[in-house]
Amino acid sequence: MSYLKNKIINDPIYGFVHIPFESIWKIMEHPYFQRLRRISQLGLSSLVYPGANHNRFHHAIGSMHLMNKSIEILKSKNHNITEEEHEGSLIAILLHDIGHGPFSHALENSIVKNLSHEKISIMFMHKLNVEFNGKLSLAIDIFTRKYKKKFLHQLISSQLDVDRLDYLNRDSFYSGVNEGIINSNRIIEMLNIKENELVIDYKGIYSIEKFIIARKLMYWQVYLHKTVLSAEHTLMHILQRAKHLIGKNNTIYTTPSFKTFLYQKEEITESFFIANDLLEEFALIDDYDILVCMKNWTKENDKVLSILSKTIINRNLLKMIPIKEEEREKELKRIRKVAMHKFNVHEEDVKYLVFSITTKNETYNFNDEEIVFLKKNNNLVKLSDTKNEFSMNRKNAKIIKHYICYPKGCVI
Amino acid sequence: MSYLKNKIINDPIYGFVHIPFESIWKIMEHPYFQRLRRISQLGLSSLVYPGANHNRFHHAIGSMHLMNKSIEILKSKNHNITEEEHEGSLIAILLHDIGHGPFSHALENSIVKNLSHEKISIMFMHKLNVEFNGKLSLAIDIFTRKYKKKFLHQLISSQLDVDRLDYLNRDSFYSGVNEGIINSNRIIEMLNIKENELVIDYKGIYSIEKFIIARKLMYWQVYLHKTVLSAEHTLMHILQRAKHLIGKNNTIYTTPSFKTFLYQKEEITESFFIANDLLEEFALIDDYDILVCMKNWTKENDKVLSILSKTIINRNLLKMIPIKEEEREKELKRIRKVAMHKFNVHEEDVKYLVFSITTKNETYNFNDEEIVFLKKNNNLVKLSDTKNEFSMNRKNAKIIKHYICYPKGCVI
Amino acid sequence: MSYLKNKIINDPIYGFVHIPFESIWKIMEHPYFQRLRRISQLGLSSLVYPGANHNRFHHAIGSMHLMNKSIEILKSKNHNITEEEHEGSLIAILLHDIGHGPFSHALENSIVKNLSHEKISIMFMHKLNVEFNGKLSLAIDIFTRKYKKKFLHQLISSQLDVDRLDYLNRDSFYSGVNEGIINSNRIIEMLNIKENELVIDYKGIYSIEKFIIARKLMYWQVYLHKTVLSAEHTLMHILQRAKHLIGKNNTIYTTPSFKTFLYQKEEITESFFIANDLLEEFALIDDYDILVCMKNWTKENDKVLSILSKTIINRNLLKMIPIKEEEREKELKRIRKVAMHKFNVHEEDVKYLVFSITTKNETYNFNDEEIVFLKKNNNLVKLSDTKNEFSMNRKNAKIIKHYICYPKGCVI
Amino acid sequence: MSYLKNKIINDPIYGFVHIPFESIWKIMEHPYFQRLRRISQLGLSSLVYPGANHNRFHHAIGSMHLMNKSIEILKSKNHNITEEEHEGSLIAILLHDIGHGPFSHALENSIVKNLSHEKISIMFMHKLNVEFNGKLSLAIDIFTRKYKKKFLHQLISSQLDVDRLDYLNRDSFYSGVNEGIINSNRIIEMLNIKENELVIDYKGIYSIEKFIIARKLMYWQVYLHKTVLSAEHTLMHILQRAKHLIGKNNTIYTTPSFKTFLYQKEEITESFFIANDLLEEFALIDDYDILVCMKNWTKENDKVLSILSKTIINRNLLKMIPIKEEEREKELKRIRKVAMHKFNVHEEDVKYLVFSITTKNETYNFNDEEIVFLKKNNNLVKLSDTKNEFSMNRKNAKIIKHYICYPKGCVI
Repeated sequence: MSYLKNKIINDPIYGFVHIPFESIWKIMEHPYFQRLRRISQLGLSSLVYPGANHNRFHHAIGSMHLMNKSIEILKSKNHNITEEEHEGSLIAILLHDIGHGPFSHALENSIVKNLSHEKISIMFMHKLNVEFNGKLSLAIDIFTRKYKKKFLHQLISSQLDVDRLDYLNRDSFYSGVNEGIINSNRIIEMLNIKENELVIDYKGIYSIEKFIIARKLMYWQVYLHKTVLSAEHTLMHILQRAKHLIGKNNTIYTTPSFKTFLYQKEEITESFFIANDLLEEFALIDDYDILVCMKNWTKENDKVLSILSKTIINRNLLKMIPIKEEEREKELKRIRKVAMHKFNVHEEDVKYLVFSITTKNETYNFNDEEIVFLKKNNNLVKLSDTKNEFSMNRKNAKIIKHYICYPKGCVI
Repeated sequence: MSYLKNKIINDPIYGFVHIPFESIWKIMEHPYFQRLRRISQLGLSSLVYPGANHNRFHHAIGSMHLMNKSIEILKSKNHNITEEEHEGSLIAILLHDIGHGPFSHALENSIVKNLSHEKISIMFMHKLNVEFNGKLSLAIDIFTRKYKKKFLHQLISSQLDVDRLDYLNRDSFYSGVNEGIINSNRIIEMLNIKENELVIDYKGIYSIEKFIIARKLMYWQVYLHKTVLSAEHTLMHILQRAKHLIGKNNTIYTTPSFKTFLYQKEEITESFFIANDLLEEFALIDDYDILVCMKNWTKENDKVLSILSKTIINRNLLKMIPIKEEEREKELKRIRKVAMHKFNVHEEDVKYLVFSITTKNETYNFNDEEIVFLKKNNNLVKLSDTKNEFSMNRKNAKIIKHYICYPKGCVI
Repeated sequence: MSYLKNKIINDPIYGFVHIPFESIWKIMEHPYFQRLRRISQLGLSSLVYPGANHNRFHHAIGSMHLMNKSIEILKSKNHNITEEEHEGSLIAILLHDIGHGPFSHALENSIVKNLSHEKISIMFMHKLNVEFNGKLSLAIDIFTRKYKKKFLHQLISSQLDVDRLDYLNRDSFYSGVNEGIINSNRIIEMLNIKENELVIDYKGIYSIEKFIIARKLMYWQVYLHKTVLSAEHTLMHILQRAKHLIGKNNTIYTTPSFKTFLYQKEEITESFFIANDLLEEFALIDDYDILVCMKNWTKENDKVLSILSKTIINRNLLKMIPIKEEEREKELKRIRKVAMHKFNVHEEDVKYLVFSITTKNETYNFNDEEIVFLKKNNNLVKLSDTKNEFSMNRKNAKIIKHYICYPKGCVI
Repeated sequence: MSYLKNKIINDPIYGFVHIPFESIWKIMEHPYFQRLRRISQLGLSSLVYPGANHNRFHHAIGSMHLMNKSIEILKSKNHNITEEEHEGSLIAILLHDIGHGPFSHALENSIVKNLSHEKISIMFMHKLNVEFNGKLSLAIDIFTRKYKKKFLHQLISSQLDVDRLDYLNRDSFYSGVNEGIINSNRIIEMLNIKENELVIDYKGIYSIEKFIIARKLMYWQVYLHKTVLSAEHTLMHILQRAKHLIGKNNTIYTTPSFKTFLYQKEEITESFFIANDLLEEFALIDDYDILVCMKNWTKENDKVLSILSKTIINRNLLKMIPIKEEEREKELKRIRKVAMHKFNVHEEDVKYLVFSITTKNETYNFNDEEIVFLKKNNNLVKLSDTKNEFSMNRKNAKIIKHYICYPKGCVI
């Protein structure tokens, strides 16, 4: 493989990342992709783990790097992958997250409706494909699972894809929670193909177990960390509140870029988004808009918006307590009453200040397309059929927890 | 030493950082300090090293951690340091950078004049001291070098202080440029006190050499990296241009927080800053204001402001070429002429697009207060008197380089 | 805590290890302890992992270091531990492995009978206690579980002791199998005491899960690695063969130190060992004796001894194939017949060349004294009662595997 | 590049090392090469750095790995290197240290005379070349600098070769002295060829500076560490004493393998070695012979041999004090007198117990073939002509120190 000379990116995790195709470099230079520099990978997690300021830009490049290594390993095992497929796969993974909005997930459930970042990623890919004269067509087919060589899609999106391999190590590295460190090198060395599907050489079974456990631990310690959840749900409620105020014809601060979305009175569903050609507007918003809005909203007249914004800006976050499902409604009611009194707000407004959250962490999905191992005798075996080698307990694979969030001082 | 229970911060570099005093925790919770989360440690370096998104908040805590370890080592060597001095030193280092503005240095030479971040740090300390009922008085004395135990100040600010120990490792870690990694543990183990001054046990001499070389390498590879410099000087010119336009009564976009500074027509010197009591306003601005401004300035009518802002936002940076000092003026003139023609701008405006930069990197300052070693025989020896152990060449200690920056396509 | 000045040991895993007591240093200087430099930690594992040349000496010091940190953490949580108990615990852990013989376990099942290294460790402790005028009495009580503060013994030997914390990281580090890396710092931070027993703060539950999984993975990838097992069982058979030949009055090579044990015709049981006061002789043998013996045995007339010794010295190891328990005897018989013919050896001799091995790996023992967590509400909960948080499957906790070993070229 | 399937070696430093040629694997399996497992890389350094138990076997494989990466980088820069040259270079570096004797350098200046390990390496290569039917001919030409493509030899042996790149990182890693860590990846990325000579792309200049400083620091902290030197010179004196006793017709203990060398009464020069065909005998000795000898010599009647052997076995090493050159003889005389009295030994014998050592550490040799940089304008520049970028001081490049060693208790 010959790399582009002088196109090397420093990555504290992998050392040097080489850029293997001219097209990859060109896409990286595009303002759509540069915008990912301003989208934090872990939303508001840096409020808990102050080192976790990494962004989607770096994650996308890291994933592309692992994709490249994976394809080289598969080729060295004599699987046929053409230069076009190689390039297409790399473009696809590079752009897999380009549809993420501010703080990765903040707009979902507040500003947009049923419009996942994957859908927006595909819109960006189509738009870039026009600019790049069809160069992205194969990448789009791979990304949308239409391409015949299914394993290429599986490398990008499955229960063991390069996306997860990159983000586990990257999130561990930057947060300092080293429970998530996995041996991505070893896992990639074990990749193989059988009947057009991605499989793992059987002797890699322990590395896979470690990978699944590491992912679970990162869920509990970082992605579903109580304080992180509290902050991210607060952000969602802040945006909902802002929308609510605007819906009632109040004028509140916004940055120019964010105005289209914030002041839009109709629901921004997928069809509305397409019909109004919002992609170019979407490409202008990032973490910086939301944060500048929140800084200004700390001074808004609306008490709810101002209180919530301060909890984020000054990191004086809502409290969050675990609650049994059956006691949730009663307790919500009770705490809301206290908050109404304390902050002198109405019943319809207090629900922005006091609310409940439900989390679930599924270590590994036994119903979805499974991780499959290739034994020395050429047989295949699903992860769920390797029970006596795996520590994993099928029963507890899915754990659900409930919490209530509320401003400090509201529980008696 | 007993730590505050449950007050532990994850740091990928040190593992866990314990908070040893209630006062430290209280200061960390203050909005002034929380604002440091929004001030990047390395300005625009992340445009070159995409992992370098760490901020002043984390650096301040890391430095406090090293200060704490240093004091514990000195105490274990039977030097008398009282609990109050211990606490005061930690407060002082925690706040040493609190006066930094957006992107650490962007306002200097553009928005404010002769107003260093140290001066503003001291103003913040005094303000907090009022809020905390005099708790910071000793910290202020130590920081401003008024306290009798001189070594406490030297730990905070000297040619071998915990500030440098933290930032070298932190900047290396996040940028992935591992040339800067030093053994801060080993150096701290070697700290000692002699006649009220900070000294190093002689056997630590090799670690000190490595520290000085590591710092030099970080200067060349990161702090003075051509592309980083180009971006940071462009940012300075963007702000100067914005000021210039406002000076001519144009109205350009600003975030509300930044308005006070951007639209101020008088020079913001130290005395003006104090006279107008600007500290509280200053506490409201951070990287996010500047970046949102630049995003909007990409669409300003003023060609110069728009071009320059796009170079940063879309990372299509100015080119930068090394130049001999004697050829600088001639070459500047020549390139400016090309740019005037290419962008159709006036002579007085082109200087914002095409300009020169001078850098100097001094590995170690032989004139300043030197690093001093304590030999086994209890004698002191200055670093500059250990010539035959050190590789360092005194003559080349200071290296000066010149460059010209210009928009792509302006050199024929 | 004040450390002994200038008594610092470099450890690539922990950085610096300080020696906190004069007694610890004195014991480390004793020839009994220095001998541990010549006992490899992982026996013959370096034949598979060439980096794994670390020894019991370094492990003992590393464990002492973790013990010291554990005690400091417990003290900082206001548990009363006297200076004598602190010192005694450190002596006990320092000496916990001093009874190990060559290649850690080579003599067991070959040269000695029912004589564990723990028993010999205790004998060494008593002998040193005489030399050190009773200084080790408390350490012996702690080690032998006689001391009232049970948690001190549990730190040394339980399902979560500092021995395991050290060896998992150390074996991972030196072998390069990073599946075993655990966050020993974090685990130690979570240690606590309740009713005189060692417990873990509940929020450490994820670190504990990672610890148990890491241990399991190290078992499969290193400690029970097929090739390692093959080599270690070959070594056992070599020693058995040597004993057998001597029993038949052959004279074979031995180093002087090893002669007492090798040429001893009676079984060396615990009582025989004590009755004949063999401790001083035992203190003279180490890996170097056995390896020099094997080098010379490659040239012995006895074909079996020579073949087996060459497999180790030239690393041309016996093959090892997994076998179902029910087919083992039949297959053993078949392969032995081939080997008898191939090497022209008798039926009674071939069993040294072709033999079976059984391994079991128990991730965590649910019957033994369990790991116990301390919840925030001050209640205790056993690890086995945290089912819905743990991935671990109780049923598959114990896995048994069978293998047959034989010289290359014996399977048709 | 396709690698041998299943031929992967774990290396804690590089992760996985792949074996790129069948010949490499075959040579690695040869008993000559397996013997390197029993030759420690750093002699007796583990007496100071207990983690430094790595051996020549691992270093040889690591160097081969870096050679392979270097050649792949050079090929990717469009330099023509044939498959045969690639393979030959890898064989040459794999065997570059195969001529090392016990503890790497112990026999030099004691058992053999003017017979460097390089000379013996070449003898081994020739012998293996016969066994491998001429497969090593090209490797031998490269190793002995006869091959036309000079850069291949320079990669193996020059002031910037893969040998140094591997050992600096390896010795740092195992000893825990992290001053020696270098960025071998980055340096290898910068390798280039100009006029058949190995050069470095100019932008790698900082990595080269770090490499030279790292090497210097490793010299002072590890390779020339006072205590290490004391131990290694003691070992030399032990072997000289043993030879001396045998020369006087005493019978002392030896392992069988070592007898040929130890009891040889003539000087073992290169010509004697060849004339008596000692290579096969040499292939049988390793660290284990010497150490078992020393263990037994602790009980020899000869007081000098016994005292010296105990200093190593029980790590009760000779003291070592720095001394000015002009005072050396006088002081030696004085201490020898004390020792003669203390140990009741003759004048001719005391010189084995009390002796002087001279060390020199040359950071970089300005007279030897220099490191050369390739500038962007295609010009070459020697390292010594980059003065104003390098911190290195030419004058102090070579530092000479003198010491006297003596048994504890001999200085009044």
